[in-house]
Amino acid sequence: ADQEARAQALAHQDRLTKPRGSLGVLEDVAVRLAGIAGTSPPPSPSPAALAIFAADHGVHAQGVTPWPQEVTGQMVANFLAGGAVANAFAAHAGATVTVVDVGVAAELAPAPGLVIRKVAPGTADMSAGPAMTAEQALAAVEAGVLVARELVDAGARCLVTGDMGIANTTASAALICAFTGSDPAAATGRGTGVDDAMLSHKIEIVRRALEVNGVTAPEDGMPAAEALRRLAAVGGLEHAALAGFVLGAAAARVPVILDGVIAGSAALAAAALAPAAIDYCVAGHRSAEPGHAIALEHLGLRALVDLELRLGEGTGALLAYPLVGAAVRVMHEVATFDSAGVTEKDAQTT
Amino acid sequence: ADQEARAQALAHQDRLTKPRGSLGVLEDVAVRLAGIAGTSPPPSPSPAALAIFAADHGVHAQGVTPWPQEVTGQMVANFLAGGAVANAFAAHAGATVTVVDVGVAAELAPAPGLVIRKVAPGTADMSAGPAMTAEQALAAVEAGVLVARELVDAGARCLVTGDMGIANTTASAALICAFTGSDPAAATGRGTGVDDAMLSHKIEIVRRALEVNGVTAPEDGMPAAEALRRLAAVGGLEHAALAGFVLGAAAARVPVILDGVIAGSAALAAAALAPAAIDYCVAGHRSAEPGHAIALEHLGLRALVDLELRLGEGTGALLAYPLVGAAVRVMHEVATFDSAGVTEKDAQTT
Repeated sequence: ADQEARAQALAHQDRLTKPRGSLGVLEDVAVRLAGIAGTSPPPSPSPAALAIFAADHGVHAQGVTPWPQEVTGQMVANFLAGGAVANAFAAHAGATVTVVDVGVAAELAPAPGLVIRKVAPGTADMSAGPAMTAEQALAAVEAGVLVARELVDAGARCLVTGDMGIANTTASAALICAFTGSDPAAATGRGTGVDDAMLSHKIEIVRRALEVNGVTAPEDGMPAAEALRRLAAVGGLEHAALAGFVLGAAAARVPVILDGVIAGSAALAAAALAPAAIDYCVAGHRSAEPGHAIALEHLGLRALVDLELRLGEGTGALLAYPLVGAAVRVMHEVATFDSAGVTEKDAQTT
Repeated sequence: ADQEARAQALAHQDRLTKPRGSLGVLEDVAVRLAGIAGTSPPPSPSPAALAIFAADHGVHAQGVTPWPQEVTGQMVANFLAGGAVANAFAAHAGATVTVVDVGVAAELAPAPGLVIRKVAPGTADMSAGPAMTAEQALAAVEAGVLVARELVDAGARCLVTGDMGIANTTASAALICAFTGSDPAAATGRGTGVDDAMLSHKIEIVRRALEVNGVTAPEDGMPAAEALRRLAAVGGLEHAALAGFVLGAAAARVPVILDGVIAGSAALAAAALAPAAIDYCVAGHRSAEPGHAIALEHLGLRALVDLELRLGEGTGALLAYPLVGAAVRVMHEVATFDSAGVTEKDAQTT
C-alpha cells in the first residue's frame, strides 16, 4: 500500500468538520483505502462484486457436521435462483453475485452467474492424508486470482468474498492452527448446528489432520512452498480459491472485504504466500466461530460488523460494504473547518 | 408491539434457507420490526428520514467542553449546506435530512431543510437550578412528536435520530444518572476532546446539577410527572425533543433508529414517560461515551454498530440503517427450504 496516500488521507481527515478521530474505525478504513488506491481521497469502492466460491470436503465423511454434503450443490442452485440470504444482502448493497464452482462434488449444469472452474469434485479426507495435492491447491489459487481479475476488468471497484461448502469450518479451523499455531480446541467452533459431542469429535479430527499431515506450529518467515503445502494439506478448494481472490484483489489494487471464518482462514494462507496482500483486505465482520477472532488478530484486522452471524456466503462482508462506502464518501463530501466557517476546538469564544 | 406478528416473524425466520439463528442479532431486528408494524414480514423501512435536533446548553458556561458555543449554530449551517458527516452518511444511506432548531442560542435565518421550533435560546445552567421549566420541556417534547408525525406523513417509514448541541454530553450524563441511578463518575465521558482535568470537572458539574435539582436515585414506576421534572431539570431541549420524537415514532408505528449517547439518554426519558415506546426503538450504534452502554443496558437494547464513533449528528444511526433494511429484506426475498429444494440439517444423506 502507498504510504504517502495514507498520510495524505490521515491529514485530510483532521481538516474535516468533525472532532478529530470521531469517526473511529471508519477513519482507519478510509486511510486503508487511500493506501490501496495510492491516492487520497480514495476512489469510491463502487460497484462491488461478490464471488461465492463453492466446494466440497472429503472430511465430511468423518461426521463433522449435521448437514448432508449435497446441500453444497443445492445452495449453489439457490444462489443462482436468487433465493439465498447472500442474494438479498447483495441486492440491498447493490453488489453483483458470481458463483464459482471450484470443487463441488455434484456435477453442476452451466447457468448464468455460474463460473465453472472445478479443480476436483471435492477434496480428499484431510484426516487421512493431504486434502489436495500441491498442484490442485495451486490451480484453485489461480482460479481465485482469475475471478478477481475478471470482476475488476468488468468494472468492480470492490471485491467481496463469499463461500459455500458443507464442512468448511472444519478445514478453516485446521488452516487457522496451521498458520497461527493455535490449538484445535481453541480454533474449532460449532459451525452451523454442531452439538457438544460432535464438537469434541470435530476438534479431534482437526488435531488428527494436522498430525497426519505433519503440520506443526508455524515459524516466522515460512517459505511460500511450505505455505502452499499447508494450504493443500488441510485446506479446502474454496479456501485456496479465496486466497487467490485476495492476491488478485491486491494485484489489481482494489479492496477486498473479507467475510467470516472461511475467508479469514484463507487470508492467513494468502498472507503466508504474500504478506503485503493483507493491506488490501478489510475485515467485514466477526463471525461467531472462535477461530475467526484468532485469525483476525493474527492478520491485524478489526472487523466492522459484529452481530453474531454464522452463515457464511459472504453475508457479513456484504453488511460491511455500505460502511466502507460511507467512510470513503466522507473524504469526498464533508466540508473542512475553513471552508464551512466552523470554529475549531479551544478557539476563544466571541 | 404486536406479539402475534413477532411470533409469525420468528417462525418464518426458521423456514428460510439458512441455519437457524445464523443471522444473529439481525433476526431480532426483523422480529422487532414485525412487532412494530403488526405484520410479518414487516414492511420495508424505506425511505428513512433523519431529524437533527439542535440546541444549546446553559451549563456550557461551566467549562465542560473545549468547543465554543457558537459551533452549534455553525454546524446547523453546515448541515443545511450539506457539508457535515451526517449529510454524507444520509446521502449514502438514501435518507433525507431535516434540521430542527429547538433551542439554538443564535438566531437562525429560515432556510430549506430547517424547521424552527425554538422553545428557548438554550437552556439555563443546570448546575445552578433547573435547565428548563416543565412547560419548556413539554413544549420541546411536543416539537419532537410533531416532527416525527410530519416526517411519517411525508412518507418516511423509518425515523433516524440526530442531534447537535455543544455541551450536550454533559446533559446526557446527568439524564443517565437521573433515570438509571448511575454515579456521575461512571456515566460521564470525554465527549469530543475533553482532557483529564476537564473530565474531573465535568463529573463534578453533573453531580452538582443532580444535587441542586434534588434528583436522587430513581424508583421503579416513576410517575410521568416526575420523569418530566427530571428531564426538565438536567436535560437539554434537544433531549426533550428526541424523547418526543421516539414517542411520535411509536404513535405512528414506525421504527426509530437511535444514534448515540444523546439519543440513548433521551430514550431513557421517553421510557420513563411511556415504557412501551422502547419497543419501537432500534439501537443504531454504541458510542464511545461510557454512559451510553449504561443507557442501552437499562433500555434492554443491543447496538448494531460498534466502531468507536463519538460524533453525534445521527451518524451512528445512519450507518445502522442499511443493516436494518437488510434484515427486513431477508424476510421478503429469501427462499424457504421447501421452496428451494434444499435439504435440512440432520436429514439422511442420499
